[in-house]
Amino acid sequence: MAVCEILSVGTEILLGDILNTNSRYLSAELAKLGISVLRHTTVGDNHERLAAALKTALSRSDIVITTGGLGPTEDDITRDVCCEVMGFETQFNSDIAKGIEEYFSAKGIDMPASNLRQAYVPKGGEVFENTKGTAPGLGMKKDGKCVVILPGPPYEMAPMFEQSVIPYLEEYTDGAIASMTVRTMGIGESAMAEKAADLLESENPTVAPYAKKGEALLRVTAKAGSRSEALELCRPVVDEICSRLGSFVYGIDSESIEQRVVELLKENNMTIATAESCTAGYIPKRITDIPGASSVFEFGAVTYSNEMKHKVLGVSNETLARFGAVSEPTAREMARGIRRVSGADIGISVTGIAGPGNDGTDKPVGLCFIALSAKDAELCEKIETGKNDREYNRYVTASRALNLARLYIEQKTKG
Amino acid sequence: MAVCEILSVGTEILLGDILNTNSRYLSAELAKLGISVLRHTTVGDNHERLAAALKTALSRSDIVITTGGLGPTEDDITRDVCCEVMGFETQFNSDIAKGIEEYFSAKGIDMPASNLRQAYVPKGGEVFENTKGTAPGLGMKKDGKCVVILPGPPYEMAPMFEQSVIPYLEEYTDGAIASMTVRTMGIGESAMAEKAADLLESENPTVAPYAKKGEALLRVTAKAGSRSEALELCRPVVDEICSRLGSFVYGIDSESIEQRVVELLKENNMTIATAESCTAGYIPKRITDIPGASSVFEFGAVTYSNEMKHKVLGVSNETLARFGAVSEPTAREMARGIRRVSGADIGISVTGIAGPGNDGTDKPVGLCFIALSAKDAELCEKIETGKNDREYNRYVTASRALNLARLYIEQKTKG
Repeated sequence: MAVCEILSVGTEILLGDILNTNSRYLSAELAKLGISVLRHTTVGDNHERLAAALKTALSRSDIVITTGGLGPTEDDITRDVCCEVMGFETQFNSDIAKGIEEYFSAKGIDMPASNLRQAYVPKGGEVFENTKGTAPGLGMKKDGKCVVILPGPPYEMAPMFEQSVIPYLEEYTDGAIASMTVRTMGIGESAMAEKAADLLESENPTVAPYAKKGEALLRVTAKAGSRSEALELCRPVVDEICSRLGSFVYGIDSESIEQRVVELLKENNMTIATAESCTAGYIPKRITDIPGASSVFEFGAVTYSNEMKHKVLGVSNETLARFGAVSEPTAREMARGIRRVSGADIGISVTGIAGPGNDGTDKPVGLCFIALSAKDAELCEKIETGKNDREYNRYVTASRALNLARLYIEQKTKG
Repeated sequence: MAVCEILSVGTEILLGDILNTNSRYLSAELAKLGISVLRHTTVGDNHERLAAALKTALSRSDIVITTGGLGPTEDDITRDVCCEVMGFETQFNSDIAKGIEEYFSAKGIDMPASNLRQAYVPKGGEVFENTKGTAPGLGMKKDGKCVVILPGPPYEMAPMFEQSVIPYLEEYTDGAIASMTVRTMGIGESAMAEKAADLLESENPTVAPYAKKGEALLRVTAKAGSRSEALELCRPVVDEICSRLGSFVYGIDSESIEQRVVELLKENNMTIATAESCTAGYIPKRITDIPGASSVFEFGAVTYSNEMKHKVLGVSNETLARFGAVSEPTAREMARGIRRVSGADIGISVTGIAGPGNDGTDKPVGLCFIALSAKDAELCEKIETGKNDREYNRYVTASRALNLARLYIEQKTKG
């Protein structure tokens, strides 16, 4: 099995200014190709350290993929250092230069002269077209080793990888690993792991638990001659896990709770509407992350103040005065209200205290109420995350509100 | 200046299942302490490779901070490997065990026996309390080298770093670097860099350009005896950059466009309301990412269908039929509508085609209209990102709508 390392280049990553999402993307893609990723490394825009890291990586691995440091400015050194370490000369490519000039003229912007740095490529290497920006990707193969050089911006790097790099790596892709991930909500990581304790001992596939904001996951990974054979090894184990964990399981693989809910709504020709206080747009944002959500979602109301909860959703002023905005009665009236106003089949609502401060009452940060209103049911759940973490509380509460919709639809369509 | 490496542990990172946000967080925090981060490395849950990576990192650097691999399950090996490499014995700590038991009983859950693995600590080392979970952090110092072991979940790791690790690293923090970042919107990276071309040559502070979704940034970094001295070196350069880039500059440092808008609204006692189609909750989500946004934001409407644009915001059916949902007239009527319905001082709206598919017309993916309505002004802008990237298009359009509010308030309060 071919072994790869990912080498990210950029002082801005080491300073914490930007988040390295490329390594994650490339790792997931390489796993699908059956190429094993053994290490991620990040170094700054420093000639000596980049060269040392590349040499070390090449001494251990078949393939090194770099991202970043191909920009138009002086501190972008990846191209030169990689060519130097691999022993390739660089040469000016006038087709690329022309493409860069056209890119700017199509945008009606004058091209800064420095952009022409991006037209230098390794002699005898491969050039990968950049359909989203100006810096082309580059590939070099020598003595069984392969270096792939990709631009840093994720929206340039990812399409280039899919279109050009996957075919370039073909000779390295015999044998494959495949993973399937069972995703649960409402059970903790260690409780989940105990239910699958014997499976965690197995070798091929292996089973590994991990936790993710408000979720607990089990990853099943198998190796075989092909990706489809590896998946065949995973499936019975995944089925066994699902039967043990029952309705805690909401999805398989990268499927998110929002994706599952949109699927269920589509399958059952149902629509959903959202009424939010503390999550303030997070739920419709996540629902509409799913392309095609417009057939199941038409309206969401972010009612951040009591006045708007009353005016838009019809939450009674008495309820707000007596129980407060963060209460079960308010959550229920919000869900009923949004269903009435929108005409959707399901209304879901969230009201809570995301932190950092509380709402002036003695209610704790992390306390949230989620509710669901439908023609034949009304549900409400109290959530206490115990964390003073605004983003965590909002994300998890939004997830749990979506999960309430999943549980309702699954229950309804099962019976 | 002390040198540090960050070593992340977790096969799930190398498989691309989770995104490594810890390295970014720690890098930003260490930079503030004047500790230079030279490398990020990620290895899997593999004894031999983790031990090798730790030894190499210790041979180059004063401090190594690990994250991950402290969970309750068998594949969590970081604690044992680090103690072994540093030559520390482990011992059972009954206070920690008691704390873990209490954590579970407070949640009303039975403690899985495997959680007691987390009560083993290095003899002669330091224990860092985990206020958000069960695995304590650990510290070991020997022969001038320091290893800090932190849990993987970011919401456990970050507070532990702030409360316990910063004081633990005190002896390494003399001398400091400081960075200031100038953030712009509406100008490209290379055009921005050209305006600051001479500054990019300077040594202390250094100036480096980079691009981020829909933004172009210039980072100014200085080294000095103390953090405040380093900041003093940065400030005149930042001022010079701001004067050259004018109203393209929306903020300094980590300030986001939503933060800037919330600040401006607060300063001027104004309120904002949002009406969204394609961004569908992204703008209120981002406004309310800022704690205390409730004083400036009360209501947002996500009107994903034409019917809801008409019913909730009063967009005329004639406008929708004649120009379509993705048009300047619709964007303007949405902004006016939300201002009227909410009673806010400023209404902003977005309607566009986020992709992957278009809207059945010949309008291209990435075409969006943003509008602003206020008592004394109405603005509208057409945006064409040229990208078929749903998340990018939604993020950038939301940013630009917020930027429209910034430009309006800055202009109004200047005059």
